[in-house]
Amino acid sequence: MRIALDAMGGDFGPEVTVGGAAAFAKASGATVLLVGDPDHIEPLVLQHDTANLKVVPASQIISMDDHPVQAVRRKPNASLVVAAKLVKQGEADAFVSAGNTGAVMAAAFLHMGRIPGIDRPAIVSPVPVITGEAILLDVGANVDCRPQHLLQFAGMGHAYMQKVRGISEPTIGLLNIGTEISKGNELTTRTYQLLENSELNFIGNVEGREVFSGRTNVIICDGFVGNVVLKVAEGLAGLMLGFLWKELVSDQATNPGGLPAKKVFQQLKRTLDYTEYGGAPLLGVDGVAIICHGSSDTLAICNALNVAEDAVRAGLRDSIADTAMKLGGEGL
Amino acid sequence: MRIALDAMGGDFGPEVTVGGAAAFAKASGATVLLVGDPDHIEPLVLQHDTANLKVVPASQIISMDDHPVQAVRRKPNASLVVAAKLVKQGEADAFVSAGNTGAVMAAAFLHMGRIPGIDRPAIVSPVPVITGEAILLDVGANVDCRPQHLLQFAGMGHAYMQKVRGISEPTIGLLNIGTEISKGNELTTRTYQLLENSELNFIGNVEGREVFSGRTNVIICDGFVGNVVLKVAEGLAGLMLGFLWKELVSDQATNPGGLPAKKVFQQLKRTLDYTEYGGAPLLGVDGVAIICHGSSDTLAICNALNVAEDAVRAGLRDSIADTAMKLGGEGL
Repeated sequence: MRIALDAMGGDFGPEVTVGGAAAFAKASGATVLLVGDPDHIEPLVLQHDTANLKVVPASQIISMDDHPVQAVRRKPNASLVVAAKLVKQGEADAFVSAGNTGAVMAAAFLHMGRIPGIDRPAIVSPVPVITGEAILLDVGANVDCRPQHLLQFAGMGHAYMQKVRGISEPTIGLLNIGTEISKGNELTTRTYQLLENSELNFIGNVEGREVFSGRTNVIICDGFVGNVVLKVAEGLAGLMLGFLWKELVSDQATNPGGLPAKKVFQQLKRTLDYTEYGGAPLLGVDGVAIICHGSSDTLAICNALNVAEDAVRAGLRDSIADTAMKLGGEGL
Repeated sequence: MRIALDAMGGDFGPEVTVGGAAAFAKASGATVLLVGDPDHIEPLVLQHDTANLKVVPASQIISMDDHPVQAVRRKPNASLVVAAKLVKQGEADAFVSAGNTGAVMAAAFLHMGRIPGIDRPAIVSPVPVITGEAILLDVGANVDCRPQHLLQFAGMGHAYMQKVRGISEPTIGLLNIGTEISKGNELTTRTYQLLENSELNFIGNVEGREVFSGRTNVIICDGFVGNVVLKVAEGLAGLMLGFLWKELVSDQATNPGGLPAKKVFQQLKRTLDYTEYGGAPLLGVDGVAIICHGSSDTLAICNALNVAEDAVRAGLRDSIADTAMKLGGEGL
C-alpha cells in the first residue's frame, strides 16, 4: 500500500503533513509518498524513525488563492498535481491533499479521470451523529445538479457505506423540505422518482432536522445545499459550545462542578470535530482521492491517510463502478 | 387595531388560540377577531375577562392533511380563508394562523393579493442569534427561485428590519458556499450582480457558518435552502442540548452545580426557541399575514399577534411597496 500525500498542502505545509504521515506510517505499515520540495521535507522526515516515508520531488506549489483549474493546467509540477498523477501511473494507490480544494478536485478529475457511469464526482462528508454512522453528499463539488447526478451520488454513498463502513444495506435519504413525495423543488421531486425506481435502499425524503439524528446512513443533496448544511452546523455548534463553555466551565463561580463539565464538553467537541474525521473522500474519480481541510493538523492528516487506506483495502473504486453500472449510468 | 386570528388553526385549536388571543388583547388593547366555530370558541372566550375578543363565524376547517390550494378553493368558509378575506375587506388589519402552512400562504395569496413589484411572497424567519438581530428569507414559500425573486426578498427584508426592528440601514448578505464573488451556483452568482447594483446595503456573500453569528441583519436564500437551514439548526441544537442536559444537569453526580447549569440551559433554549418568536411574517402579500408553527402554544400565539401588531403599526406594507418600486419591480 502506497499513498501519495501532497506534503506542501494545507495551511501549515510540511511541518504538519510530515508529522501526520509519520504517525500513520508507523501505525499502519503502509508507505507514504511525500510529494513536494525535498529541501523542505527531508529534514523533517529525518526526525521520524520510520522507513515508510519516501520523498517524491515536485517543484511547484498551488496556493489557496490560485484559480483551481488554471493552476492545475499551468503548474504540471505542483505537488498536488504530481500526487494525483502518481495514482494514475500506478505508483500510488491513493492521493491525499489538504491543499486548495478546487485544485485538488481539478487535479483528481483531470489526471485520474472518472469511473464509468459517474458523470460528476462528489465530496462525501461524515456526519457527526452522536450515535450511528452517517454520510452526507455532495458537500461542495457540484453546485448545480440534475436528478441523474443525485441518483449517482446515492449509488456512490451506498457503495461507500457498504464497503468502507461495512453496513450491508445502507439506508438512503433524500434531503428535502418535507417527508411527503410531493414536497420539494424540481430537482428533489424528480430525484425522488429515480431513487424510488432504483434498487437502492431508499427510505424517502429526510428533513433538515434529521440530518444529525442518524436516522439514515446516507443523505443525498446537491453540493450547494450540502455545503451550506455543513457550515451552518459548524457555526451553530461552535456558537452553542462557546456560550455554554463560558457559562458553565470557564466561570467557576456558576459551576463548582466545572471539571466534569469540561470532560463532557471535550467529548461532544470530539464528536462534532471535523479534524477527528480527517478527510472527505472525492467519490467517482477513478481511484481514491481524499480532500482535507486546509486547517488540518497532524491528527487530521493521519486520519485522512487512514481513510484513504480503508477505501483502497475495501475496493471502493470497483464497488462504485459496479453500483454505477447497475444504476444504468453512461458506462453501460 | 383589529387582528383576524384563525381560531381553529394549529395542533391544539381554540383551546390554545383563544388563550393566546386573550393574553395579547389584555396587554395590547387591540381587538382580536377569533374566526371559527362559535360553539367551540365562545365558551372559551367567556373564561377570559376582556372585551377585546370578538367571534367571527366560519363553518369549515382546513386540516393539516388537506391539499393547500385545493382546500382554499373548495372551502370558502374555512376559518383561515375567512380570516384572510377580513383583511382584504378592510375588516381586519392583519391575519394570523397556525393552520396548514401551505393553505395559509394560498389563502393570503389568493385573497389578499401581492404588493405591486413583488412576484413571490416569502416567509421570513427570525434567526436566533445570541447577540444582535437577524432574519432569514425565504424559508419555504418558494422552492425554485430566479435571481429577480431573491432581489425582491432582499428588498422585503430591508423594509422589515428598517420599519419593524428600527435598524436604519440593515445589512444584507447572500447565503452562499464561499465569500468570493465567483462562488456559488447559477442562482447565487446571478443574484450577487443584482444585489451589488441595487441601492440596498449589500455586504456580499455569507457562508453557512455566519448565519447564526449575527454578522448581517438580513440573509437571503431560496426557500428550499432556507427551510433546510432552519430545520438543520433546530435538529442539531436539540441534539446538542439533549446530550449536554443529560450529562450536565439531569445527572447530579457528574454535576453538583446542576441548578445554575439548568438556568443557563433555559436561557439558551429560549434564545433558540421558535415559539418565543411566535410567528413568521409572509412578506409581499398585500397586507400583514403571520404564519405560526402548527405546534404553537399560547405564548407563541400571543407573540405572533404581537408580531402582527408591530408590522401594522410600522407601516410595513407601504414600506415594502416603496422598496419594491425602487428595486424596479413589475409595479413600475
